[in-house]
Amino acid sequence: MREACGIFGVFGPAGLNAASLIHRGLFALQHRGQESCGIAVNDRGQVRLLKDMGLVSEVIGDDDLHQLQGAAAIGHVRYATTGPGSRENAQPLLTRYSKGILALAHNGNLANTDALRHELEHKGAIFQTSIDSEIIAYLIARHRPDCATVEEAVSRSMRQLRGAYSLLIMSRGKLLAVRDPLGMRPLCLGRIGETVVFASESCALDAVDATFVRDLDPGEIVVADRSGVRSLRTHCGQVPRPCIFEYIYFARPDSCLDSVSVYQARLAAGRLLASQHPVAADLVIGVPDSGNDAALGYSQASGIPFGKGLVKNNYVGRTFIKPSQAQRISAVRIKLNPIRSSVSGKRLVLVDDSIVRGTTSARIVTMLKAAGAAEVHVRISSPPFLWPCYFGTDIPTSEELAAPHHTLEEIRQQIGADSLGFLDPASLAAMLGKPGATYCDACFSGRYPLLSGHVADDDTSDRYLVE
Amino acid sequence: MREACGIFGVFGPAGLNAASLIHRGLFALQHRGQESCGIAVNDRGQVRLLKDMGLVSEVIGDDDLHQLQGAAAIGHVRYATTGPGSRENAQPLLTRYSKGILALAHNGNLANTDALRHELEHKGAIFQTSIDSEIIAYLIARHRPDCATVEEAVSRSMRQLRGAYSLLIMSRGKLLAVRDPLGMRPLCLGRIGETVVFASESCALDAVDATFVRDLDPGEIVVADRSGVRSLRTHCGQVPRPCIFEYIYFARPDSCLDSVSVYQARLAAGRLLASQHPVAADLVIGVPDSGNDAALGYSQASGIPFGKGLVKNNYVGRTFIKPSQAQRISAVRIKLNPIRSSVSGKRLVLVDDSIVRGTTSARIVTMLKAAGAAEVHVRISSPPFLWPCYFGTDIPTSEELAAPHHTLEEIRQQIGADSLGFLDPASLAAMLGKPGATYCDACFSGRYPLLSGHVADDDTSDRYLVE
Amino acid sequence: MREACGIFGVFGPAGLNAASLIHRGLFALQHRGQESCGIAVNDRGQVRLLKDMGLVSEVIGDDDLHQLQGAAAIGHVRYATTGPGSRENAQPLLTRYSKGILALAHNGNLANTDALRHELEHKGAIFQTSIDSEIIAYLIARHRPDCATVEEAVSRSMRQLRGAYSLLIMSRGKLLAVRDPLGMRPLCLGRIGETVVFASESCALDAVDATFVRDLDPGEIVVADRSGVRSLRTHCGQVPRPCIFEYIYFARPDSCLDSVSVYQARLAAGRLLASQHPVAADLVIGVPDSGNDAALGYSQASGIPFGKGLVKNNYVGRTFIKPSQAQRISAVRIKLNPIRSSVSGKRLVLVDDSIVRGTTSARIVTMLKAAGAAEVHVRISSPPFLWPCYFGTDIPTSEELAAPHHTLEEIRQQIGADSLGFLDPASLAAMLGKPGATYCDACFSGRYPLLSGHVADDDTSDRYLVE
Amino acid sequence: MREACGIFGVFGPAGLNAASLIHRGLFALQHRGQESCGIAVNDRGQVRLLKDMGLVSEVIGDDDLHQLQGAAAIGHVRYATTGPGSRENAQPLLTRYSKGILALAHNGNLANTDALRHELEHKGAIFQTSIDSEIIAYLIARHRPDCATVEEAVSRSMRQLRGAYSLLIMSRGKLLAVRDPLGMRPLCLGRIGETVVFASESCALDAVDATFVRDLDPGEIVVADRSGVRSLRTHCGQVPRPCIFEYIYFARPDSCLDSVSVYQARLAAGRLLASQHPVAADLVIGVPDSGNDAALGYSQASGIPFGKGLVKNNYVGRTFIKPSQAQRISAVRIKLNPIRSSVSGKRLVLVDDSIVRGTTSARIVTMLKAAGAAEVHVRISSPPFLWPCYFGTDIPTSEELAAPHHTLEEIRQQIGADSLGFLDPASLAAMLGKPGATYCDACFSGRYPLLSGHVADDDTSDRYLVE
Repeated sequence: MREACGIFGVFGPAGLNAASLIHRGLFALQHRGQESCGIAVNDRGQVRLLKDMGLVSEVIGDDDLHQLQGAAAIGHVRYATTGPGSRENAQPLLTRYSKGILALAHNGNLANTDALRHELEHKGAIFQTSIDSEIIAYLIARHRPDCATVEEAVSRSMRQLRGAYSLLIMSRGKLLAVRDPLGMRPLCLGRIGETVVFASESCALDAVDATFVRDLDPGEIVVADRSGVRSLRTHCGQVPRPCIFEYIYFARPDSCLDSVSVYQARLAAGRLLASQHPVAADLVIGVPDSGNDAALGYSQASGIPFGKGLVKNNYVGRTFIKPSQAQRISAVRIKLNPIRSSVSGKRLVLVDDSIVRGTTSARIVTMLKAAGAAEVHVRISSPPFLWPCYFGTDIPTSEELAAPHHTLEEIRQQIGADSLGFLDPASLAAMLGKPGATYCDACFSGRYPLLSGHVADDDTSDRYLVE
Repeated sequence: MREACGIFGVFGPAGLNAASLIHRGLFALQHRGQESCGIAVNDRGQVRLLKDMGLVSEVIGDDDLHQLQGAAAIGHVRYATTGPGSRENAQPLLTRYSKGILALAHNGNLANTDALRHELEHKGAIFQTSIDSEIIAYLIARHRPDCATVEEAVSRSMRQLRGAYSLLIMSRGKLLAVRDPLGMRPLCLGRIGETVVFASESCALDAVDATFVRDLDPGEIVVADRSGVRSLRTHCGQVPRPCIFEYIYFARPDSCLDSVSVYQARLAAGRLLASQHPVAADLVIGVPDSGNDAALGYSQASGIPFGKGLVKNNYVGRTFIKPSQAQRISAVRIKLNPIRSSVSGKRLVLVDDSIVRGTTSARIVTMLKAAGAAEVHVRISSPPFLWPCYFGTDIPTSEELAAPHHTLEEIRQQIGADSLGFLDPASLAAMLGKPGATYCDACFSGRYPLLSGHVADDDTSDRYLVE
Repeated sequence: MREACGIFGVFGPAGLNAASLIHRGLFALQHRGQESCGIAVNDRGQVRLLKDMGLVSEVIGDDDLHQLQGAAAIGHVRYATTGPGSRENAQPLLTRYSKGILALAHNGNLANTDALRHELEHKGAIFQTSIDSEIIAYLIARHRPDCATVEEAVSRSMRQLRGAYSLLIMSRGKLLAVRDPLGMRPLCLGRIGETVVFASESCALDAVDATFVRDLDPGEIVVADRSGVRSLRTHCGQVPRPCIFEYIYFARPDSCLDSVSVYQARLAAGRLLASQHPVAADLVIGVPDSGNDAALGYSQASGIPFGKGLVKNNYVGRTFIKPSQAQRISAVRIKLNPIRSSVSGKRLVLVDDSIVRGTTSARIVTMLKAAGAAEVHVRISSPPFLWPCYFGTDIPTSEELAAPHHTLEEIRQQIGADSLGFLDPASLAAMLGKPGATYCDACFSGRYPLLSGHVADDDTSDRYLVE
Repeated sequence: MREACGIFGVFGPAGLNAASLIHRGLFALQHRGQESCGIAVNDRGQVRLLKDMGLVSEVIGDDDLHQLQGAAAIGHVRYATTGPGSRENAQPLLTRYSKGILALAHNGNLANTDALRHELEHKGAIFQTSIDSEIIAYLIARHRPDCATVEEAVSRSMRQLRGAYSLLIMSRGKLLAVRDPLGMRPLCLGRIGETVVFASESCALDAVDATFVRDLDPGEIVVADRSGVRSLRTHCGQVPRPCIFEYIYFARPDSCLDSVSVYQARLAAGRLLASQHPVAADLVIGVPDSGNDAALGYSQASGIPFGKGLVKNNYVGRTFIKPSQAQRISAVRIKLNPIRSSVSGKRLVLVDDSIVRGTTSARIVTMLKAAGAAEVHVRISSPPFLWPCYFGTDIPTSEELAAPHHTLEEIRQQIGADSLGFLDPASLAAMLGKPGATYCDACFSGRYPLLSGHVADDDTSDRYLVE
């Protein structure tokens, strides 16, 4: 389960070292992407770029921060498939065009990438990466000569873009923050005195001691330059469809997205789960770390005590060695270990945030029973995955998913649980604490948002984007 | 706050790849030392060594495991002061002596290091490291010619050693596990079929799917060789003094040391704290990760709800940049962030495992109040640090500690808490669930264990080791 | 003194590992560029790219060659200014355009870069690098839809290119080798059985045991594909102007460029120098390694014995530490050392290939005199640098050069020589052994070649390209 | 063909940065060892050590030099067999013993290593490396308590050492330079003002702008401390037996060893070869770089013109990839390339310094003939290798050598030469320009020096050390 990216931007007064703020902000967003990261800094019109494969702590060193002087900057963390060529795809993307420099950082996924790419190629474009940012940069570059400002060129480009995008765009004199018309990916605005800060999640504003100002509205373009901060709302006004999975899994619990606390949403999911799938048990435990908050909610609503039943090894990271299937099996063993004294003889409620293939759940249930658990009742704080996502959530193909191919009872048997319950999709608005809330839950429901914007010329059909 | 080391050993039948078991075992012990690690493998009498600065995942790669063939092996993880020269101090130590090869891995700290070193130097020894293992290797090498077996030489050497030591010693044909006569550091024995496994903590046995057999007795020497496993108990029989801080801080909660579950001890500490220092409050939260278990115990005993109030950034590791004090202040900010929606308006009980200098606690209290907490009542699941440790726990010097120099009220004011309570030292046995348990709590009480063993010839005075 | 690049290409039958040939070829061309290198391999239509800062031995490893399967490939070595952003400029450049994949490797320098870049930017292009290859790729991409073949698109693009370029262009099914109409940079064709090989210098053909076939003609496009090898000569027929400095400095002495042996040209330069600037002396020595061949020629013509007077330290490379000017001074001391027994008491002729700033020459003369040399007569096997080069030779700006600002006598005094002589510019054709040879010697003469080709639309003036 | 090591030492007044001099000195000695290097610096009694696998430029960085403050230091470069464990064998060796600190750097090879090691082990020593320095440190440590000074302990230790050793020994307050009683390995003394410098070769004195003072006498101990420099000559007076191969191959041509210029010795070898093995030919060429000097001497004596026939690729270093025998064959092809225009049609004299297996010579002759050479007459500027070396020259085992198993005619046929001649062993003194010179030529003659010194107690027989 992967998210596309996290972005962070700073526009401050002359003399500010924007890079050190970006560095701290990217640390706070590292959970959104660990494959590569980068930073582009604007030093009075001259832009320097540093990006590479690796964690923020590996790529951006102390010396780098000294060299990356400049009062405006954007940064990016990326989680993507590995393999040759991925280094080319690290962001920000830095390009030169007719009006000077353009640096872009993008979180999300366009749905009409192929159509836009083909259209641009037929007009003579060459592509050096496979990231959406390069397409967006081309669109801006093509509109720019006909526009008075870069924000107008961005606005025109947005008519062609379909899908999920939160963008930071840095030109020689401006920093633009853009959120797609459906607000599918989060983006918020903060301040440190005169300095303007943008971040994918509010926890990154906290990390730089910035004051949270507000979330960007879906479709909004915020422009920061020497004359201040202003908003373009041409593309605003549609019914928002923010990704519900940000609350369930992606975002950090200390973030608040579109006025909803991620932590409170997870507690609420656990409480709803307790009322929808009650069971007689002795102890509620979560699969660490992501299942713990919903487990606590389940405990609160059910009155069954909350405890710790599994310990996670924090040192098992990207680099642990898994050459063969045999070793992959034992990787779960190394990553998670039951506390025998806690679970032995107990009827357990085990709360996790989702089931993808079901194999990890099966191994955890087996471990707990081997450690003496009398019963294991699995509760999942989200509905079953049934549909693919085209907007940046890397759900496995339908063939690999457990839910589309099996009944609930078959999955229960497969994972060896004594009972199994998923969150009712109808209760997602209640989870957010906003009864009439709209959101994108296409991965659970198949109800994909109708994407606005002018499509590319030859994009006459788009089979998957139906409501 | 640091521990010296973790050790792991394997003695198996011909054909076993002991290194891959060591690799998994060291992963599970990584929390005991992150500075350097190493592995020595015995391939039918030929011993190969791999060690370097860094985490297990950084030092031991896939290719290494293929090259490190052999059915017996020992491994080590180390946490120590940094600086030039530390690479020389990585373990295991591999030496050649009159009877062949000797590889050693040591957890703990000798108290008569200087005396032993001087005595050996006067007999012509040269030292290339500053680790105790080198001294121990010399003692064994000197006794060996007068002894029929290596275990006899080890036993004679133990008469000279004073302090805390859990040892793994690998010779050409044997693997020895040794625990000091007071059992200050943990060491346990497990099995995977015919294969014998030794580990600092039982969680590492779990990681290799070994069955826990038993803890070594204080003073015991266990010898594994082709003819089986046997025990030498010459040094057994003293009143054990295991380090109480293993339960409070060092060990993993899923470990069981000397028949006491670390998790249950931490829950008990929280419950005792609730009865010793009750307070009217709305929410109990822990300082993650180490304060969470005692916080849950406090909640259980007090009836005040347990919740999450602080989120820890798992990506802030050894490599985060802290060039100046200014940035160190903000490092806490990046590492921990309050959940505003959780703590705002609440009277909080904040549980942590210890207070060293008090500066981190002060910052956390400040953050929580800035996030809207109405009151913050700090509860510490251990007694105040008052005395230095000579056995491997790296407590700062007395000058740096808060407790020896301030009253409880002064510390409370310094950290900005509304109230402050430490665990009563008299309840440590209750914490272990063993009313008559003996242990070393010298860092809290100043009651240092009387160290057995013949002292080195010129070690006529030893000012700090008095009961 | 730097050259832009070296290029190497392979087109072979299915099953060939082209990458391993590229690897060996780039080794042989490493003297043409040490900053970065790269390789692009075509595996039945799928192109993989590996490039990075560093030497061939650092960037391309054994595992890489196994992964870079494919029967066609191009490679590049680059010498360029260091600093942030240079990694983006490593070659080959790999792009996707309307007709698929295009990989380019370029040696030389365009003279109308800015005009072409501006023209493309006004049509909506974005640039991610500062290398000419990106401009060339755009031109080809724009012409391609109107052309039947990629070679036709290349041919049309050549009408817009002005300057020095030897190119390798790899499409999904073809490998194209291109030499600019003046033949300013070298490029030759070889064969290993069915396999076609292209290289900047013939020494790289030797390194892969290829048979030299011929140099490409100026303006020629050679196309290799499954149906064989063919030549397009649309742009052929101009008076060639190959760079004379290839013979004096850049090329390896074992290469033969446009039918002239580099070694023989250097011997000839020394012989001409002896006749133009004779002197009574005891020993002729060269500044290693580049001055040795001309020194031998001087000895042959003058009858003065040849010997070794200076030893070069082969381990002083890019990584030697030069933090301050003080240490830079001693760097020459470490790089070169006189043989006292060889030079002491002798009247020396010291032969070098060029004088740039004069500081290195001054230090060498000082060293030789300190080692006891009675006289040092400096002879330079090229004329003085007076004009900038726009075609890829990185001659320092006129301000830094010694020759444009000083008389011969002033330079002689500055370097402390007893006499000083440069090669007469009028003898360059004689040096090549071709009396009527044409070449580019603009850096000595200021006679820049009149560049052919249609200029970019807005390129109405080009101040420096006058004959 | 490998040498053991190069050593460099500095003892200067307070405030000197000795490390930066060591750094430059080791650069100049890098040809004597490329596997590992290291430096130990004495900062008013505190010694810091830096050593690792790799070249000086890779191991010792700019920051290191800043941190390695101190006015006295020793350094080492090492060429040794690769494989696991070699990092432990990097030098200098830093040990602590009864009188404080001892750092050692050693060039050469002891002949009674095993006997000394066994004797020490039986007295309780443990060994962590396989280098002679560790044995020497033990001997000094054992003698030290009975001696008034460290130099006396060194002197007593020398009675036990048999073989080749040039040593630098740094204690808290002194720097000792030691040369074995036969002077088998070179060591010289220089000065920069007050600062005393020791180096394996005089070229390293040049690199730090030191004045050459003199070579150490065989058996001499030079002591530098705050009170000045003095000499202990207890072990002096034997007939010296310096290694003749230093002149033929190891040393740099700009060095002067024991008053003989290496360059002049090589010229002389070439001249002697011309008189011993004359031939009618058109051109004399050397195998670069080591054969060039003798080739020039051959040309001088024979009157046959000297020229360049082979070009060496300077970028083929340790890291070039040679996974299989097939690629090893082509490695010679990449490393050396003939200049066709130079050799074609010519009768060549090809001069090299030695023949080991004969395979490389065979490939070079084949290449030259393929490039058109009419005849190739091979001349070797040393006698044939017939015997093993026990003093640090890594000559292959007798089984691998060509000379002990084949007649001259067989070797000639094997390498495909038209004629073959080796230097007459009787002319080695003439080569040195010292008619009565004594030296060690055991690898050619089998006349091993009778090693002085008291042997270790149980060293009753020593089969190979007979005169």
